[in-house]
Amino acid sequence: MNIKILLDSHEEGGPPTLGDVVKRNADLLAADAVIMLDGPMHISNRPTVVYGHRGGAGFELTVYGARTELHSGHYGNYSPNPAQLLASLLSTFKDDCGRVTVEGFYDGVVFDEETQAAFASVPDDEAAINKRIGIAEADCVGQSYQEAINYPSFNIAGLKAADVGASRRTIIPESATAAIGMRTVPATLPERLLALVRAHIEAQGYHLVDGEPTEEERMTYPRLASMSGGRGSKALQTPLSAPVGKWIVASLTETFGEAPVRIPLMGGSVPTSGLLSLGAPIMLLPLVNADNNQHASNENMRIGNYYTGVQTLHGLFLTPFEVGSETESN
Amino acid sequence: MNIKILLDSHEEGGPPTLGDVVKRNADLLAADAVIMLDGPMHISNRPTVVYGHRGGAGFELTVYGARTELHSGHYGNYSPNPAQLLASLLSTFKDDCGRVTVEGFYDGVVFDEETQAAFASVPDDEAAINKRIGIAEADCVGQSYQEAINYPSFNIAGLKAADVGASRRTIIPESATAAIGMRTVPATLPERLLALVRAHIEAQGYHLVDGEPTEEERMTYPRLASMSGGRGSKALQTPLSAPVGKWIVASLTETFGEAPVRIPLMGGSVPTSGLLSLGAPIMLLPLVNADNNQHASNENMRIGNYYTGVQTLHGLFLTPFEVGSETESN
Repeated sequence: MNIKILLDSHEEGGPPTLGDVVKRNADLLAADAVIMLDGPMHISNRPTVVYGHRGGAGFELTVYGARTELHSGHYGNYSPNPAQLLASLLSTFKDDCGRVTVEGFYDGVVFDEETQAAFASVPDDEAAINKRIGIAEADCVGQSYQEAINYPSFNIAGLKAADVGASRRTIIPESATAAIGMRTVPATLPERLLALVRAHIEAQGYHLVDGEPTEEERMTYPRLASMSGGRGSKALQTPLSAPVGKWIVASLTETFGEAPVRIPLMGGSVPTSGLLSLGAPIMLLPLVNADNNQHASNENMRIGNYYTGVQTLHGLFLTPFEVGSETESN
Repeated sequence: MNIKILLDSHEEGGPPTLGDVVKRNADLLAADAVIMLDGPMHISNRPTVVYGHRGGAGFELTVYGARTELHSGHYGNYSPNPAQLLASLLSTFKDDCGRVTVEGFYDGVVFDEETQAAFASVPDDEAAINKRIGIAEADCVGQSYQEAINYPSFNIAGLKAADVGASRRTIIPESATAAIGMRTVPATLPERLLALVRAHIEAQGYHLVDGEPTEEERMTYPRLASMSGGRGSKALQTPLSAPVGKWIVASLTETFGEAPVRIPLMGGSVPTSGLLSLGAPIMLLPLVNADNNQHASNENMRIGNYYTGVQTLHGLFLTPFEVGSETESN
C-alpha cells in the first residue's frame, strides 16, 4: 500500500490554493481513494466514518427603505420600515416548524433503504442533544437528527438594522440585512438553490437590485432588495457501498473491537472540492472529539482522542486495501 | 399679560427633573396656558401651530434559541433559529401595507369633523415628501400623511442577531432582538398598547420570560421571548377649539398676514408630561425649519427662522389673550 500525505495549512481560509496545487501535481497525487481526517467524531466518541458532507451557499439579503434613517415620530406609519419588510419576507421562507417553504427547495432529496438504515444505526440520543444545547423541541425537518442534516438548510446567520440596546435611536432604519447561510446536499446544487431563492423573493413583490438602489429605482419600486455574495460550495456524497468505505469500516472494527458509527452525510461543510479533480472517492475519517468547540472559545482536543487517532491510522496501515463485501458492518 | 419663562437644559435627557421642579414650584409657575417652543415647523416653513404630539412606548423584544451559538452545519434544520422565529413573530404585527394587526391596537382612535378638516387644511405635498425621503409608495395607515401620524405606530427601530457582513459566521444565533418603538396617541395609553403587544406575542405561542430564560424554561417551552424596557410617555392633545390656540392663531395671522398651518398632532414626542401638573392647556409653537436634521449630523437652524421666531414671540406679546371665536382660522 502506498500512502501519499497532503497537508494544507489554508483549510480555514477557503482553502484558496488547494485545488490549484492538486491539479498541478495530478500525477504525484494520483490515488485510488482519498481519506480526509477532518470534522468531529460522533458525539458518543465511538470510531466514526463519514461518507459525505453538506455544501454551502451564502449570501446577504438587504431590504431598502427610505434613502436615510427617518425620525420614527414624523414618519412612523408613513414611510415603510425595511426591518419590518425584511421580517415579513424572511417569514415566508419557513413554516412554523422550520421547514423551508421555497418552492422546489427539497426537490430531488430522497433516501434509499441503505441510507435510511444508516440513519437508524447512528446511536443518537435526541433527548440528550436537546438537553445539551438547551432546547425544548427540535425543528421538524426530517424524522431524526441524521435525516434533518441530510436535507438542505436555510439559516439566518445574522440580522442587522440600525441599532438595539443602549445605542438604539427613535428612527426608522434605512435598510435591514440578513446574512443567510444555506447548506446544500448532493441533490441540491448551490446555483439551483440560489436561483430558487431569488425567484421566491421576486414572487413576494420585490425588485432585486445590485447594491444600493438608484434614485430612479427608489421612485419606481415599492419593494427593493439586493442579494450579495452567493458563491457556493458543493456537497459530497460517497456511496455507502464504496470499497474504500468498507475497508475503513473493517479496519476500525478490527482495531477497536466494535463496528464504527457510519454517518452518511455530516451537517457541516469540508473543502473537498479541491480534491475532486483526482477522480478518486473521498472519505472523511474524523479523529477528534465532537465537543471540541471548533472555531469557538475553548477549542480543545481530548488527549484520549490523540491516542485513538494514532491507533486508527496505525490500524489502516495494517489492513489490506482489498476487502470483500462480507466485512461491511451495520 | 404676565409671562413666566421656564428653561430646561435636560430636555433631551428625559427630562429627568422637569416634573419635580414644576411640582415643587407650582405656585410660582401657575399659568392659564403653557406654550412650548419645541419641534419643527411645517415643511413649507409657514407659521405653524401644533395642538398635540404622540407619546411613546419602547421595549426590546428578544427571542431565544439554543443556549449558545451553534454550528449551522451540524445543527441547521435541527435547532430552531431565533432570528427566523423573530422574523416570523414580527411579521404577525403588520399587514403588507404597514397597518398594525395586533387586536385592539387602533381601538378608540376616531377623528371628528373639525380634526378631519384640519388634516385637509395642512398644505402637505405627499409626492414631494416621497421624493424627498426616497420612497415609491407610503404605507397605507390613514388617508394622508397627517392622518397617518394621528394613529399609534409600531416601529422596528433596530434588529440584531449575531453578525452580518465581514464578521458573519456560519452559526445559528443564540438569540435575536428587535428594538421596538411605539408611538401612542391620546386614545391609546402606552400601558394598554404594551399589554396588547404582550398578549399578541403570547397568542403566537410564546412564553414570555424576564431576561435570560432559566434552564428549566429552556427545556419546557419551545418558544421563548422576553420584553424589556416598556416605559411609556403620554401623548398630548389640546382641543382644536381651546382659547389659547385661537389666541396663537390670531396673533400669527396678524403678524404674518396669513393663517398659520394648524397641525392637530405632530408625529414625534415632546416631554410635556412634566408640565401636566400645572393643569393648564399646553400648545406647541415650533419656530425652527423642518429640515434642521434634528438629532443627526449637520443639525442646523435656518437664519431666517431666527428672525421669524423673534417676530412670532413679539407678536404674541402684543396680542391680548382674550380672543373671540370669530378669530379662528381655517
